[in-house]
Amino acid sequence: MIINEMTKAEINALLSRASIGRLACSRDDHPYIVPLRFAYHSVFLYSFTTVGRKVEWMRNNPHVCVAFDEIDATNRWQSVIVNGLYEELSNDPSHVDARATAHHLLSASAEWRQPGYTKTVIRDAERPLEHVFFRISVLETSGHKAVKTAS
Amino acid sequence: MIINEMTKAEINALLSRASIGRLACSRDDHPYIVPLRFAYHSVFLYSFTTVGRKVEWMRNNPHVCVAFDEIDATNRWQSVIVNGLYEELSNDPSHVDARATAHHLLSASAEWRQPGYTKTVIRDAERPLEHVFFRISVLETSGHKAVKTAS
Repeated sequence: MIINEMTKAEINALLSRASIGRLACSRDDHPYIVPLRFAYHSVFLYSFTTVGRKVEWMRNNPHVCVAFDEIDATNRWQSVIVNGLYEELSNDPSHVDARATAHHLLSASAEWRQPGYTKTVIRDAERPLEHVFFRISVLETSGHKAVKTAS
Repeated sequence: MIINEMTKAEINALLSRASIGRLACSRDDHPYIVPLRFAYHSVFLYSFTTVGRKVEWMRNNPHVCVAFDEIDATNRWQSVIVNGLYEELSNDPSHVDARATAHHLLSASAEWRQPGYTKTVIRDAERPLEHVFFRISVLETSGHKAVKTAS
């Protein structure tokens, strides 16, 4: 097996295909990860969630990293890492267009609202549902892929 | 769909089944993620990689987060987050037993060495292969699962 760097075209193709990414944020140099649905468009990754630890952390520190991968086998996989900045898409008029884009892109899946919009039962108490649209401005991408060799 | 907290038994079962996790480390509050193979045993997640950015970062800041998930559908998934501390398993005699455990656990897969031990070609130059065994001391776990409802 040989591991190669992916080209920009290969990275863009994977980002366009992918729906689930793992988002890492950080507070006081303690990282935290969550799996989330993303839609890639232009230079942004759009997503949707409910307010919780990750949103609080990203409001304080917008530097995030998102990982997308397609792992078919230990010797056949592609992995893309995105470094970017969190931008919350509030109800403010300045975000009307970006929210519309997010809504359009994410509603392509019938169940798009569910990971963020569902009823969460924590210790028998329902969590209040304050939902948040956001996007990640893609600052830098890198990708690697494993290619199986004959040997 | 309802999202529930997972029990400790459910979390341990998922960690025992899982092989691929996404590891996040952080430097200067900039997070970084990589997918890696892990083997869960006792209070540790064992893994193996080559020296690179993630190892350099974790040597400086051992606080890490590892995410394991099983996503069957947007309304049927389990997700476990582990907060822990990086511990490198050097060739020092004090690590002999831990390295043996790591070797034993990770060698259960025929191709276990490949993600860490392979030839990496970056811009037509082969990267030197300094390999590293390490383990994450599990400090805290949390897990959520989505349960499909009739409605």
